[in-house]
Parts: sequence; structure tokens; C-alpha cells
Amino acid sequence: MANESITAAKGFLAAGISCGIKKSGKNDLGLIVCPTGAKAAGVFTTNKIVSPAVVVSKKHVKSGGIYAVVVNSVIANACTGEEGYKNAVKMCERTAAEIEEKSKNVLVASTGVIGEQLPIKKVLTGISKASKKLSASDKAGLDFTKAIMTTDRVAKQAVRRINISWKKVTIAGTIKGAGMIGPNMATMLCFITTDAAISKGLLGKALKKAVSVTLNKVTVDGHQSTNDTALILASGLAGNRVISSECRRYKKFSKALFELCDDLGRQMLMDAEGATRIFKVFVKGATSGNDAAKAARAIADYPLVKCAVNGADPNWGRIICAVGSAGVKLNAGKISCKLGDVLVFNNGKAVKFDVKKASKVISKPEHIITVDLGVGKSSDFCYGCDLSREYVTINADYHT
Amino acid sequence: MANESITAAKGFLAAGISCGIKKSGKNDLGLIVCPTGAKAAGVFTTNKIVSPAVVVSKKHVKSGGIYAVVVNSVIANACTGEEGYKNAVKMCERTAAEIEEKSKNVLVASTGVIGEQLPIKKVLTGISKASKKLSASDKAGLDFTKAIMTTDRVAKQAVRRINISWKKVTIAGTIKGAGMIGPNMATMLCFITTDAAISKGLLGKALKKAVSVTLNKVTVDGHQSTNDTALILASGLAGNRVISSECRRYKKFSKALFELCDDLGRQMLMDAEGATRIFKVFVKGATSGNDAAKAARAIADYPLVKCAVNGADPNWGRIICAVGSAGVKLNAGKISCKLGDVLVFNNGKAVKFDVKKASKVISKPEHIITVDLGVGKSSDFCYGCDLSREYVTINADYHT
Repeated sequence: MANESITAAKGFLAAGISCGIKKSGKNDLGLIVCPTGAKAAGVFTTNKIVSPAVVVSKKHVKSGGIYAVVVNSVIANACTGEEGYKNAVKMCERTAAEIEEKSKNVLVASTGVIGEQLPIKKVLTGISKASKKLSASDKAGLDFTKAIMTTDRVAKQAVRRINISWKKVTIAGTIKGAGMIGPNMATMLCFITTDAAISKGLLGKALKKAVSVTLNKVTVDGHQSTNDTALILASGLAGNRVISSECRRYKKFSKALFELCDDLGRQMLMDAEGATRIFKVFVKGATSGNDAAKAARAIADYPLVKCAVNGADPNWGRIICAVGSAGVKLNAGKISCKLGDVLVFNNGKAVKFDVKKASKVISKPEHIITVDLGVGKSSDFCYGCDLSREYVTINADYHT
Repeated sequence: MANESITAAKGFLAAGISCGIKKSGKNDLGLIVCPTGAKAAGVFTTNKIVSPAVVVSKKHVKSGGIYAVVVNSVIANACTGEEGYKNAVKMCERTAAEIEEKSKNVLVASTGVIGEQLPIKKVLTGISKASKKLSASDKAGLDFTKAIMTTDRVAKQAVRRINISWKKVTIAGTIKGAGMIGPNMATMLCFITTDAAISKGLLGKALKKAVSVTLNKVTVDGHQSTNDTALILASGLAGNRVISSECRRYKKFSKALFELCDDLGRQMLMDAEGATRIFKVFVKGATSGNDAAKAARAIADYPLVKCAVNGADPNWGRIICAVGSAGVKLNAGKISCKLGDVLVFNNGKAVKFDVKKASKVISKPEHIITVDLGVGKSSDFCYGCDLSREYVTINADYHT
């Protein structure tokens, strides 16, 4: 069977081990290493309070080549002041020492509880231990994925294989994130490797674009974390003609990257804390793309809409209510709403519809809510998931 | 025992009956009547989709004198088009006919499910029935309160008695609202009566001010409904020297009205769907009042904060995370946070604190979260409540 993990792309090794932060003894520390050095790009949280890991990685990603990524789970190393910053630096230093590279060529990420200091001795010992287990096997890739999980229930991985200038190019990715997920990537770590030969500038451009229409369109609870990071590393070992302009090769790569991110985003949403189903909100008829995006997000984040989806209840009144308070331009006499194919609200008025059919639409693992604001021609979308009792259970008891 | 209901103020009668909308046979239609005519003022939802009841009341409240308010529960008469508008008008007409006044001197309000048409025959018959039961007794006042309840668990009433120019002045109020409550009064109906003699302009000014710092500072789920309405009626029968300028008498009246609204707002929040405790978020050190209000609301609406409060978990990281993504100016190295008196975060760094003590603070029926943004001198606040499994249960199954 083909390797479906983060090591599927040529030139990457991975490892995931337990360094002792997770009391269960499960993996909590992961490494990705590119021995030949990779071009890299990242997209980071826009929260004003950020983890020192984000600060350090933002700086390091500008370096010429990246040789490794080191990640820990359970503790986010956020709101940890000078000590936290030093710990993030130490993680890069130890990783660099193990692979005999420079600290500035290593990226770092953390996820978990905010405000606690890392047990840095354990983490550093763990890095040394992990560096001895590096492998290109799919097991090693999965070990890495397991190491970055917190409240995630399932390991989330995806691979896309394409041909570029008659060479096989692979893009592989893994993602963690279950709650605290809002557009702009709240509490999400996403790592992507590829063997494509591509310029650093275009790699960054392709990542930014793919993330903007996938991971940034996913909302579990509208939360934006202090640690969100999506990184891509390109080893260039596929041997394709280097992608150095926005040519057809770039478009092919871009499309595959989009599909990979879309796949990972859906997997994340399906695994959202307590989620039982997901939905796409498509808003059209807006005067601007911004308004459409704002309305879509308002609906997807609306607790009462999310509860209604949980109950498979075609309570479209809550959708209209959400739109009305989203602060966007609309025509109250022209607004319309569909649940799947079922028209429930037309030109500002309730429509008689088959409630059982509508409820069946919502009961599917994924459905589409379409809203027409009736004032323009712009559209945008957002993915959301339902709000369940389990979400509360998980989040009332997560910390203490 | 003193009358503690909406009929406590001189000159007001009330009634609450079942007209058959609630299948349980409980009260679902209420009337407040002021036979001598009252000065009136209102504050209404800012949702762009509004119930025709809001449209009609906004128009009528400009009339010289208001003689009655008619309210139904269960069906919000929102998103009901032309038929819904006609029904709101009919409710005013029938009420006016019963008390021999004009339709434009009657206010109307509805609350409940969006998108369904009122069973208007039942409602009109109910109005006639209720008009025969009008009384100044406290039982009649409570009957009215019961008639406006939807998912509310308890009847919410408050009375304030003050002296103005050596005359006893009474302000009485009742409120409904349990979920879908956001700043700017989502799914909330509030009715206030007073026998104070006061000019219409100052009555409106006092109401607007009181609501802005009480009912508009309360958030259950950040939702703004299509029907929110706060109305005040002043009969002028207390015999006090008319309040016609912003004099000491006005200030006294204003203060009592604020206290009444504060009382009702807290009662509403305590009765929020599934809520087990409430909290006040006080944000200081902001560069503007707007920023402080925005940050306070962002924290109070943050599902993960609300879940942590539910679990009595001093998970301050979520508070800081909420502030960081609130879109307000802050100094990440100066931000501080207290839970009650327990300092948990100081100048951008975690502080060692007594977790048990902090948890005890949160376990109280009400506690204060204080956040200092560290960049200015402005402050503001917001009230929130916890998010429980019961909230989901109620809202997943409310409609169908």
C-alpha cells in the first residue's frame, strides 16, 4: 500500500515519540526532517497574543533552507513570557544539534494548554530520542501525526500525487485541531511536505491561497488560537522542471495543494470536538465578497444554528436571524434560503416545505445551506459543524 | 404584601390568558392597559430582519398617548411577510376596539419561533377574553408575565419605589428571554410601567440610557433577535412635579430605572437557557470605550470561556486568547487578568496562583473577570453566563 503519511513525499523523514508530557504515555513530540534542506513557507495565526513558537518560526521560515520541524502537543507554550521564548529557541537548538544544522534552519510549533511552561528537560531529551527514530516509513509519518494530536479523536492525513513535467510529484499533509477552530486557523497545526521543485516565493503564494479558501473557511467555534500554524516544506527531489513562474505547472501544483488542504480541513471539521455532522454555508447575492464571507461565517458560528443542525431541525428562522444581525447589506424583502435543494424561505417570506425532507438533508454527514441576500452579485462560503452536548463536556473539563 | 408585578405602578391594569397557542394550555397572550393614557418610549432590536410587531410598535410609540400593549408568545411573527404585518395591525385594532381607543395608541410585541404565521383568530379571540380580565392586582401582573414566557423557567419581575418631590413614585418591570440573548437585546421583551410624571423626551432618554448599560450589556450567546423590544409607559399618576429637565428629579428617576433594568437583566441571565452561573467581564486599560466594550463582549461570548466557567475551571488562557482575537488594541507584554481577586496573569505572563481558590471564585453564582489591556485608560463591561450541556439540549430540540 502506498505511503499516505507526511513521509510520502521524497526527501522527508519523520518520527513521533512520547517524551512524557502526555500522562497516558502517548506520543507528544514529533519531528519532520529534510536532510537535503527544503524551501519553506508558513501561514500563521493573526491572534494578537501569539506563542513564542510562532514568533520563532516566523523568523526562521525566512531562512534559506529548512532542515527540520519540531512539534510538541499538550502545552501550547503561549503566554509564557521570556522563559517560553527561550524554550522555543532551545527546541530549535537541540533539533539543529541532532541533525547537525543551524538553529535558524529549524521550525517549531506547539499546541495545547495556554499559560503553562514546557517541561523543557523532557522535551529536549525527547528531541534527541526522536531524532534517533527518524524514518521515511508511513509508520513514522503516522507516529508524527499522533504526536501532534490533543483532543483529536482520529489521525488526519492526506496525500496527493500529480505529474509535473513528466515527473511524479507528491504532496503530503497532516493536521491537528478539534476545537477552538475559527477562520484564520484557530488552534490548528498543519504540516505539508512536497518533493516538488518550486521557488520559495511561489511556494508561499500557493500555500497562502490554498489555506485562504480551505483551512481559513472552517469554523468550529469562531476561535482563533495563539498557536495556529500551517507550514509547507518542498524538498525539490521530484526532479520536475522548477516551478518559477505562474505557469501551467504552478497551476497544477496549486490545484493539488488546494485539494489536499480542502481534504485536511474537512477531516478536521468532521473530527471537531463533539461534532456529528458538517455543513457548508454558501452566501450569494451580496454587494461584496467581504459581506458574503461575513454573513457565511456569522451563520456557521451561530450557536442556535449549530444546535439546530445537531437536532436535524430545519429551523431556518435562526439562519435568517443570524444573517440579519451579521452587519451586512441585505434586502429583507428579497432574502432567500435553501437547505440542500429545499427552498424554505423565499423573497423575505416563509415557504411551505417538506419538513421531513429538509430534516433528512440536515441529517446527512454534510449539507449545504444557501442564502441569497438579494442585493448584489458577490458570493463566498464557510464550513461549519454542529454544536453538541459533547462539545461542552470536552471543554468544561479540559484543563483542570 | 406589596404588589411586585407590572401593575404595581398607579394607573395600570394587566391580564394574561391562554388563547390556545401554547399546547400546554399555559398563558400565551398578555395585555397591559393604561386607561388614562401613558407617555411611552421604546428601544428596539437592531437586527436588519425585524418582526412586523416591531415595525408597528416603532410607528405607534410616536403617538401622543399609549393606552395598551398587547403581547403573544410562542410565535414571533417574524419573516411572515404581508400576512404577518396585517396580523400585527389586527392585534392592535382588536385591542383598541376592546378599550375604545385608536389602533395607533396600542403597542404590540411577539416572541417565539420565527417564520410561522400567528393563528390570528385564536389571538384576536384571546385579546377580547383578556380585556375582560384586566385588573390592577399582582396576580393579573404575574398572569401577564407568564403569558410572555417561552423557554423561561421562572417569572421575572422587579419593582422600585422612590420619592420624587414628596410623592411616592413606582417603577415596575417584567422581562422574558432565555436564549438568543446578545447585547442589543436579542430575543428579549421587557415591559416597564411607571406612575412618574415625566416628559416623553426624557422618558425615552432615561430608558435608552438604562438599557444601554444593563440589558444591552447582557449576552447569553451573542444573538440578536428579530423581535427585541423594551417599552416603558408612564401614567403620570404619582402626582410628582413633572420631570421636564435633566434636574435632580430626573437623575433620581433615571437611577431607579437603571437599577430596575439591572435587576431584570440579571434575572434574565440567571435564567438563561441551561445557565448555572453568571459572570461580569470588566475590561480596563483600553485605548477607547469601544475597544473595552468589544473585548468584554468577545470574552463573554467565547464558547470556550463559557465552558470553562461551567466547569469552574480557571482556564484563563482562553480569556487571553479571546482578547487576542477580539480585534482591539492591546500590549501583549502588559496584559493582565484577574478571576475575582485572584491574579492569574500579569504583564503578559502566567502567575502562580491558588487554583482551588480561583475555582471557588468561579463556582459562585456570580463572579468578575477583570482584564487590563495595558494600553490606555478606558473601560467597559459585559455580563455573560456559562454554556452547559442543557443549552444544547434545549436548542437542538426547540422547533420540531
